[in-house]
Amino acid sequence: MERVFIIGTGLIGASTGLALRTAGFAGRIDGWDMSSLEMAAAVQMGAIGGRAASRENALDLARLADVIVLAMPVLAIKDWMQQMAPLLRAGQLVTDVGSTKLEIAELARQLFDQEKSASFLPGHPMAGKESGGALLAEAGLFDGAIWLFTPAGREMTAIEKEWRGWVGCFGSRTLDMDAARHDELCAWVSHLPQMLSTALSALLEERFGDAPEIAAIGGRALKETTRLGASPYSMWRDVAMTNTVPVANTLLALEQRLQYVRENLRTPELREEFALANRFRQRR
Amino acid sequence: MERVFIIGTGLIGASTGLALRTAGFAGRIDGWDMSSLEMAAAVQMGAIGGRAASRENALDLARLADVIVLAMPVLAIKDWMQQMAPLLRAGQLVTDVGSTKLEIAELARQLFDQEKSASFLPGHPMAGKESGGALLAEAGLFDGAIWLFTPAGREMTAIEKEWRGWVGCFGSRTLDMDAARHDELCAWVSHLPQMLSTALSALLEERFGDAPEIAAIGGRALKETTRLGASPYSMWRDVAMTNTVPVANTLLALEQRLQYVRENLRTPELREEFALANRFRQRR
Repeated sequence: MERVFIIGTGLIGASTGLALRTAGFAGRIDGWDMSSLEMAAAVQMGAIGGRAASRENALDLARLADVIVLAMPVLAIKDWMQQMAPLLRAGQLVTDVGSTKLEIAELARQLFDQEKSASFLPGHPMAGKESGGALLAEAGLFDGAIWLFTPAGREMTAIEKEWRGWVGCFGSRTLDMDAARHDELCAWVSHLPQMLSTALSALLEERFGDAPEIAAIGGRALKETTRLGASPYSMWRDVAMTNTVPVANTLLALEQRLQYVRENLRTPELREEFALANRFRQRR
Repeated sequence: MERVFIIGTGLIGASTGLALRTAGFAGRIDGWDMSSLEMAAAVQMGAIGGRAASRENALDLARLADVIVLAMPVLAIKDWMQQMAPLLRAGQLVTDVGSTKLEIAELARQLFDQEKSASFLPGHPMAGKESGGALLAEAGLFDGAIWLFTPAGREMTAIEKEWRGWVGCFGSRTLDMDAARHDELCAWVSHLPQMLSTALSALLEERFGDAPEIAAIGGRALKETTRLGASPYSMWRDVAMTNTVPVANTLLALEQRLQYVRENLRTPELREEFALANRFRQRR
C-alpha cells in the first residue's frame, strides 16, 4: 500500500489519515471533500497531503490509489461506488466506514469483487464524537474501538490483508460479521437509542418549550435520555433510509414494551420487568 | 428548632443529618430505620446522635422532636403520617422527602394543619445517587440542588420557616410548586426516563441475553439510555403506585411518538422531528 485516497475528510475520514500517519504509513494520502473548508482543514491538520481539485479529479486520484476510503453518509457512499467501479482495476481496494452495511455489501457484490475489478471491504469503525468535522479529528480516535467488517465470502486479497493490518495498528480490534446481522444489531444498540432520544426530546419540546421548571427539575436521567436529541438529521437520514425495516422493528418492539409497562404500573409484573432490566445492566 | 428526628436513615435521611451538622445545627438529632444496619451506619457516620430502640420508641421520640423528617419511599411515608398524626401537637413540623407529592399532600390536608395539630410540609430534594444507603451519605449531597416544596395554602408556621432556612443552609435552592404539577412534571423528567430505560433494558435482556456482540458494539448511546435499567424495583414501586395516571400518560404519549417516528423513517417528517429535538437540547 503506497497511495491512499480518502473521500470525505470529515471527522472519520481525517482521523483515518491521522491514524495512518501516526501508525507509520509513509506513502501518499490524498483527499476529497464536497466542502472545501473541510478539505482545507484536513490538509492543515496533516490528515491528507494532497487534495483533489474537483469531483472529476477525485475520480482520477481514485484510479491511482491502492486503497480508497469512503468516509461519508451511506447514500453518498453508494453514489461513489457506482461512479468509481468502472474506473478501478484488480489489486485496488475500496473500503468504507458507513453506519449501515447491508445495502453497501449488496451493491459491492454487484459492482466489485469480480475477476478484473477492485475488491471491496465494507467497514464500520465504532467510534465518533457528538459533533463532526475535520477540526475534531484525532489520530487516536480508533484506539481501543471495535472496527467491524462485513466481507463477502470470497478469499481475502493481499491489499485487503494489508488494510486490516493498518486498522489493527490504529489500536482497533477488528471483528467480522454478516452484513444483515450488523444492521440488525446496530438497529438495537445504536439506531433505536437515537430514534428514542429524538422522539423523547421532540415530545418534551412540543409539550414544554422553554418552561423553566423543566430545566430546574430535570436531572441526570433527563440529560442522558435526551442527549442524542442533539444529533443532526443529516447524519441519521441515511441510516433511516438504508436500515428502515430493522429500525422499524426495534421501534415497534419498544412501543409494545412501553405499553406493557404502562398496563402493569400497579401489578407485580413490573417487578419482573425491573429484574430483567437489572440483569441486563449487571452484564455490562 | 432544637430536636430533629429522622425516620429512615438511608442515603437521603443520613445526608440530611450530616448536612444539618455541617450547617451548624447544634441541637439533638435522633433517628430510626427499619434496618438496624442502616441505623448503626448513620450513627457511626455522625448523621444521627441517638437511635430509637423500636418502632414504638420511634413514636415517643417523634413526640419530643421539633421537626420530624420522613425519608422513605412514599407508601411508608403515608403509613408513618397515619401513625404519628394523633400523637403530635401544634408547633411541631413534619416534612418528607418522597418522590411523589399529591397523595402525601392530600393525606397531610386530612391529618395535619388543623388548629391543634402539627404542620406538614411536603418536600422533595432533587438529589440522589445510583445506589442508596447510609454509607453513601454526604453532608454536601444537597449543595447546589433544588429542594421542592408543595405546601398547602395556609400561612407558614415559625418552625416551617426555620426548616426552610436550614435547607437553604444546605446549599439547596428551594422552590414551591403545586403538588399535582410536581407529580406531572416529575413524571415527564424523571419517571418516564426511568420506565423507558427499564423497558429498553428488559427488552434487550430478553432478546440478546449474554450475546457477546451487544457488549462489543454497544457504545455510549446504549450505555446512557439503559443506565437507569439498574435502578431497583423497591425504589420505583411506590412511584408507580402513587403517580400512576401521570406516568401512564407520559408512556402513552411516548408510545405514540415512537409510532410516528416509525411511520416516518422515509419521509421528510423525520427532519422536522430531529429539528424539534435539536431545539429542546439547545435550551439545556
